[in-house]
Amino acid sequence: MAIKGVLLDIAGVLYDGDTVVPGAIEGMQALRAAGLPLRLVTNTTRQPKRMLLDQLRRLGFEVAEGELFTATEALVAYLVRERLRPLLLVHANLDEEFAALDRERPNAVVVGDAAERFTYPRLNAAFRLLVDGAPLLAIATNRYFGEADGLSLDAGPFVAALEYAAAAQAILFGKPAPAFFQAVLNDLGASPAEAWMIGDDVEADVNGALVLGLRATLVRTGKFRTGDVERISEGGSCVADLSEAVQALLKVSNGA
Amino acid sequence: MAIKGVLLDIAGVLYDGDTVVPGAIEGMQALRAAGLPLRLVTNTTRQPKRMLLDQLRRLGFEVAEGELFTATEALVAYLVRERLRPLLLVHANLDEEFAALDRERPNAVVVGDAAERFTYPRLNAAFRLLVDGAPLLAIATNRYFGEADGLSLDAGPFVAALEYAAAAQAILFGKPAPAFFQAVLNDLGASPAEAWMIGDDVEADVNGALVLGLRATLVRTGKFRTGDVERISEGGSCVADLSEAVQALLKVSNGA
Repeated sequence: MAIKGVLLDIAGVLYDGDTVVPGAIEGMQALRAAGLPLRLVTNTTRQPKRMLLDQLRRLGFEVAEGELFTATEALVAYLVRERLRPLLLVHANLDEEFAALDRERPNAVVVGDAAERFTYPRLNAAFRLLVDGAPLLAIATNRYFGEADGLSLDAGPFVAALEYAAAAQAILFGKPAPAFFQAVLNDLGASPAEAWMIGDDVEADVNGALVLGLRATLVRTGKFRTGDVERISEGGSCVADLSEAVQALLKVSNGA
Repeated sequence: MAIKGVLLDIAGVLYDGDTVVPGAIEGMQALRAAGLPLRLVTNTTRQPKRMLLDQLRRLGFEVAEGELFTATEALVAYLVRERLRPLLLVHANLDEEFAALDRERPNAVVVGDAAERFTYPRLNAAFRLLVDGAPLLAIATNRYFGEADGLSLDAGPFVAALEYAAAAQAILFGKPAPAFFQAVLNDLGASPAEAWMIGDDVEADVNGALVLGLRATLVRTGKFRTGDVERISEGGSCVADLSEAVQALLKVSNGA
């Protein structure tokens, strides 16, 4: 089966903080040179799309706006479609993505990686809405992400807290939600078997893609931890970094 | 089977905030008049034992210190036995219970109802300890409790958050932990079938007691919500308040 598209996670795969992963820029260029369409797919909820594009370009990655898919925009589209008024538990950087929405008398709870904004009063206000029947909408349910000084809590633990408190089930919008992957595949015009996902999150990126029938490779950069290798579902692979993932992918693609 | 002891939850059963539940003082007196030993068993983690005793007595309940069993003291005994140095996520009121313990270079995480102390930096520090293999010790895992202005998040959701983040499993010390009920039964010298639990928390009080073979009654005071009735496990009952629970209990006890 030919490869018709490649999905790349961003943080931890292309860069770590403000440092480009060695070989990542060249890896992306090699994929483009081979004529393979790319899509960058991210659960990052600490940056709006505009800021993400800026950072990518500043670091030397050539990316078109249409190539970037964020979990946040998938959730915002849902809020608009369902005419929901969100109570936001999101990072301050993300406020601009929700600026056009009515937030008076909220009737939905949105959880992203709110970091310091995860305070008890805010979580309690969200809980009380859920008890009254408001839906719980999760941009992402990642457990943690890598920071300069160690691992830090991502949105997932706080989604789990609210689910437990209100005996509710969150609707997930980012990876590994099948709808998120499917939207990217539709845009690529590729079937799952024709697409390849590369990421540093064994659950959201790799196993999420494998469940849908994509090929998937875990890289040992970003938040990768040794124990992750044993958690890869059947069919997934693990390599050093994006550069090595691209080489493996191009070998399969050329052989097809 | 004769009743040899009665276990009473405190908040929501004996009083609500600073208001005695009507008939609760007389209900407790009726149990004592019938010669039934009482034990007060609480997961409350916003008050140390000293403060709980003060509040009970100030409101008119006659209670001996030995009749009061708290989840916190069960956990503190474990920390001492295992020589653990806790990182505390507990309410400021509870600090005195841990005052005698070494807290330098923590190697265990203790979670109670820390309320406003549940900040992102503190939760993150706890998470990093768990990733390094520290045990997660939960005073209680209650979902919520009743406050004057509505339901509020209890310790349970934050235990769930840390469990999810670190893929860890908490050790629970309060109700419905079998060891907690068993310690009270040992003190009463009663078998499970000879003891009766009365509480307003369908999971921690009622179903927790039923699993062990105690009789158990849910009261419609405190944090009771209509949907709780359908969640009572087989064999449990539900009545208006402590007063009615005591009447039902004395009928069974006299008939035995």
